[in-house]
Amino acid sequence: MKRSVIGEIAEYIAEELKQVEIILNENLHSAIKVIPELSRYILESGGKRFRPMLTLLSARLCGYNGYAACVAGAVVEYIHTATLLHDDVVDESDRRRGRLAARKIWGNQASILVGDFLFARSFWLMTEYLPEEALAIISKACVSLAEGEIHQLVKSFDINTSEEDYYAIIYGKTAALIAASCEVGAVLASNGNREALRRYGREIGYAFQISDDILDIVGDPGKTGKPVGNDFREGKVTLPLIYALRDATSEEKRHIRDLLLAESISYDDFGYVREVILKYNGVEKARERVKEHGMRAVEAIKGFDNSKEKEYLIGIAEFLVEREY
Amino acid sequence: MKRSVIGEIAEYIAEELKQVEIILNENLHSAIKVIPELSRYILESGGKRFRPMLTLLSARLCGYNGYAACVAGAVVEYIHTATLLHDDVVDESDRRRGRLAARKIWGNQASILVGDFLFARSFWLMTEYLPEEALAIISKACVSLAEGEIHQLVKSFDINTSEEDYYAIIYGKTAALIAASCEVGAVLASNGNREALRRYGREIGYAFQISDDILDIVGDPGKTGKPVGNDFREGKVTLPLIYALRDATSEEKRHIRDLLLAESISYDDFGYVREVILKYNGVEKARERVKEHGMRAVEAIKGFDNSKEKEYLIGIAEFLVEREY
Repeated sequence: MKRSVIGEIAEYIAEELKQVEIILNENLHSAIKVIPELSRYILESGGKRFRPMLTLLSARLCGYNGYAACVAGAVVEYIHTATLLHDDVVDESDRRRGRLAARKIWGNQASILVGDFLFARSFWLMTEYLPEEALAIISKACVSLAEGEIHQLVKSFDINTSEEDYYAIIYGKTAALIAASCEVGAVLASNGNREALRRYGREIGYAFQISDDILDIVGDPGKTGKPVGNDFREGKVTLPLIYALRDATSEEKRHIRDLLLAESISYDDFGYVREVILKYNGVEKARERVKEHGMRAVEAIKGFDNSKEKEYLIGIAEFLVEREY
Repeated sequence: MKRSVIGEIAEYIAEELKQVEIILNENLHSAIKVIPELSRYILESGGKRFRPMLTLLSARLCGYNGYAACVAGAVVEYIHTATLLHDDVVDESDRRRGRLAARKIWGNQASILVGDFLFARSFWLMTEYLPEEALAIISKACVSLAEGEIHQLVKSFDINTSEEDYYAIIYGKTAALIAASCEVGAVLASNGNREALRRYGREIGYAFQISDDILDIVGDPGKTGKPVGNDFREGKVTLPLIYALRDATSEEKRHIRDLLLAESISYDDFGYVREVILKYNGVEKARERVKEHGMRAVEAIKGFDNSKEKEYLIGIAEFLVEREY
């Protein structure tokens, strides 16, 4: 069951998710054709709608299942999509979700500006349909998002990236928006426990990002759809490597630093990096973190009465802990 | 007096403008040093605070002169600054306001992400201090901004850019935010005439952008601080050229198109373009438009009682009509 919890949830809230898709689609109208074209290209490229799902489940858990939750779901997906567009420009990525990155088709310039459009459109949508608190939650998350991305940029290619840096980066780039996605669901209910859902979302965000970073090292490309070693090649020093470097010999550390700074590295080179990470149990230790964050996420919402929604939110935490793709 | 109306206004509302500077400065706090560094570099590079001025005067004209107007002024300046950062990346500009563009110092990546930060910070500030209507006004303006920039991108290097295209572009990239800067001032007053100030701001925005585009062709670099022909070199077909091309011979049009599409053009080449523009009175006709928009701006606020604020707002319109730098 774990492996398909996302699919089960998608069925359970199928109608709301359909509404989210309609909202996502309807608000791309523009006289400038490239806006809906580029936006749809990335929106339709197999995103799992993970954030809208969390918003909808959080709202329902707190007793709200109206239209505003669908708008909020669409808003967090727009914002996430805007950051993907800007990320791909910043990282000079050629591919995204198994397809060409939008910037390879429409160019960096259009990717930057359509990202700006989606960001602005999100705020406009919120002013139309959502309460003021929702705007405060989301705008703060957007500040964190930008900070996280900039922090990551500053620390890229830095072999001395610390665990503290890493956590600050992933809080900003991932956990903040996922926490906001959950919290915003709670504020739509008249008496929702915002704090609990914010904490749940933050822990889920950590678990999600760390497991993603693990898969970038030991994932099966056949399952994940992407080659391993992407992060390292982009200069990102992630948790498994940070843990391994603590115990690595200075010889190993020096070699890895040289590879990190090299113009380009081969798959064999990354094989060496992976070997060192595994030798010092970097992946294992990072997996421990994922487990901890998963447990804390479950802990955060234990006060809620039992319900299908609660079960699914717990299921998401368990799914991330056991995630293999 | 006309030439120094901006200076006079700056003195008249010096205290509020000082408050705006404090807000601009205080909200750049971040653990990531590059955020305040890069932001301050561009914020302190000689911007005239034209938009905050309009917000403050508009609010005062409608009878409000409290702190929220200073916040609103800071917000529109942040948003303007964010778009400058993204513009410089999109246009690959090397210089801005007589200094190196931020992207030449901190790189494109940081410029994109700090732009995102300023944008997000603006919305957060609004949720803290401004009424809901302000958020609606500003977020719509941000959508128009992105649309205008994308429209400009799509039409760049297109010799067939029409007057209609041009107006849609400058509405989005300039007039929409200036209109919002004025309207947002009005909504802070309990009974402000939003519609009048929005119209005033839109016309001022048109006048401002068209006069800017004229200066790019016939301005005195010693006064404007930038060389002529920048727009043409960046592929922007602006109003004076659009007007001239209507009457130009097919030979002249073909030559100008070739120059527009050329890898690089010399100052002599731009001299040819300017000659053709002047020969067919392109600048003169565009100046007529500036005059019209200036008059319409004055017309929009004629219903207000006489006041220093009204006098200054009219002064701004007159200043733009006679602008030489």
